[in-house]
Amino acid sequence: GMDGAAPPASPAGLSAYVAVSQLLGLTLLATTGAWLGRYRGGVAWHSPLQFNVHPLCMVLGMVFLQGDALLVYRVFRHEAKRSTKALHALLHGLALLIALIGIVAVFESHRTKSIPDMYSLHSWCGMAAFVLYLLQWLLGCGFFLLPRASFSLRSRYKPHHVFFGIALFALSIAACLLGITEMLLFNIKDSYSRFVPEGVLANTLGVLLVAFGLVVAYVLTRDDWRRPPLAEEMALSMDFKTLTEAESPGGGS
Amino acid sequence: GMDGAAPPASPAGLSAYVAVSQLLGLTLLATTGAWLGRYRGGVAWHSPLQFNVHPLCMVLGMVFLQGDALLVYRVFRHEAKRSTKALHALLHGLALLIALIGIVAVFESHRTKSIPDMYSLHSWCGMAAFVLYLLQWLLGCGFFLLPRASFSLRSRYKPHHVFFGIALFALSIAACLLGITEMLLFNIKDSYSRFVPEGVLANTLGVLLVAFGLVVAYVLTRDDWRRPPLAEEMALSMDFKTLTEAESPGGGS
Repeated sequence: GMDGAAPPASPAGLSAYVAVSQLLGLTLLATTGAWLGRYRGGVAWHSPLQFNVHPLCMVLGMVFLQGDALLVYRVFRHEAKRSTKALHALLHGLALLIALIGIVAVFESHRTKSIPDMYSLHSWCGMAAFVLYLLQWLLGCGFFLLPRASFSLRSRYKPHHVFFGIALFALSIAACLLGITEMLLFNIKDSYSRFVPEGVLANTLGVLLVAFGLVVAYVLTRDDWRRPPLAEEMALSMDFKTLTEAESPGGGS
Repeated sequence: GMDGAAPPASPAGLSAYVAVSQLLGLTLLATTGAWLGRYRGGVAWHSPLQFNVHPLCMVLGMVFLQGDALLVYRVFRHEAKRSTKALHALLHGLALLIALIGIVAVFESHRTKSIPDMYSLHSWCGMAAFVLYLLQWLLGCGFFLLPRASFSLRSRYKPHHVFFGIALFALSIAACLLGITEMLLFNIKDSYSRFVPEGVLANTLGVLLVAFGLVVAYVLTRDDWRRPPLAEEMALSMDFKTLTEAESPGGGS
């Protein structure tokens, strides 16, 4: 710290799991790049390669950045709550923006090739994940960033925010797995069953996505790795609570 | 109860969520049956329809029964822990048996039609889910049913058992979604994008699987719906703990 004292240590094991999650995250980005670059002609916007922007953006936004945004409360355990919260919202916002570019890419690519939109299970799951993720982000900003929401309202919304955050992360990964399967069956249907390198590489990407999701979810849900409330936060919470209860004597709402 | 006293009530809301989960579960079984019966010629063992045993068994075993096995501690809140535990193990065992039949069905069907095994992302995710689920069941029986395991060992394994239980349930559902996508692209690849009824029905099955998973996971993870320990369990636990600590003075292992 600035005052020369050693910063408080993280729980044993947590740092190792976070490091593994980041290694997995970078590996899955590299694997996506290798697949698109080596077997699918690369990535470009105004070209027949526009479709390839879609898988790249979805893996980067809906998986890697979404996962890292979920981890910030575990990683920045001793920073001020306000900065951690801002980083959490910012990373999710960036993830949403990149995902939006990925969605525009596939819709434009479909239009160019006269392919219908939104008919597959992949598109249903993926669009549901994106729309609900956007909604969850807006609700999160409304409840936790605007000063208007009362302490008791925040406390009641928070467990739902956490549950749906992890559930939407899982749904996003499932949508990616469906997209990989669609791409393989559209592009290499006849050779897929002969274990050609592209098929094995794309399957490996699927396994990496599942592994990243597992490690992130483990770090998030392990009880003794919860972020400890800082002394000043506890005092603040009590103030808020007292204020809120004074405002609305019935408690409840 | 037998003694005429009213049984202790479940928390408000829990019963409604459990009822919704069972409605979703029965609807997804009916939808699977409708898909296979109406569009895929039905189900039979020694016939070209043997493949269809696979999706039916996997949805019944790896999703419906696995999900219900996870719910028993929430549903039977005031029964003896021992009976609830036995039911939990029994339902998972039944789920594994039915899933095994479904796996045999697809391997035999592949052999008849000379289709290679285990090349797709669906098969990798599905086989990983099944093998890890079997392992988790064996570990669960070893730790929680055999009297050998100490109280401290059980306490340390339990949160991991719960985390991997929910994670494997999510992976099982993801594998089903991949299977639906494969079946549609193998059978109706050219008409899928025209929103033919079979495609819409199978997509709906996918959405029902996701919804079932969400409701079950919500019931399992909601903090105030945890099963309260019964008075005699708390006493027993304390006995075990005292015994265990007396056995191994160092605590730890």
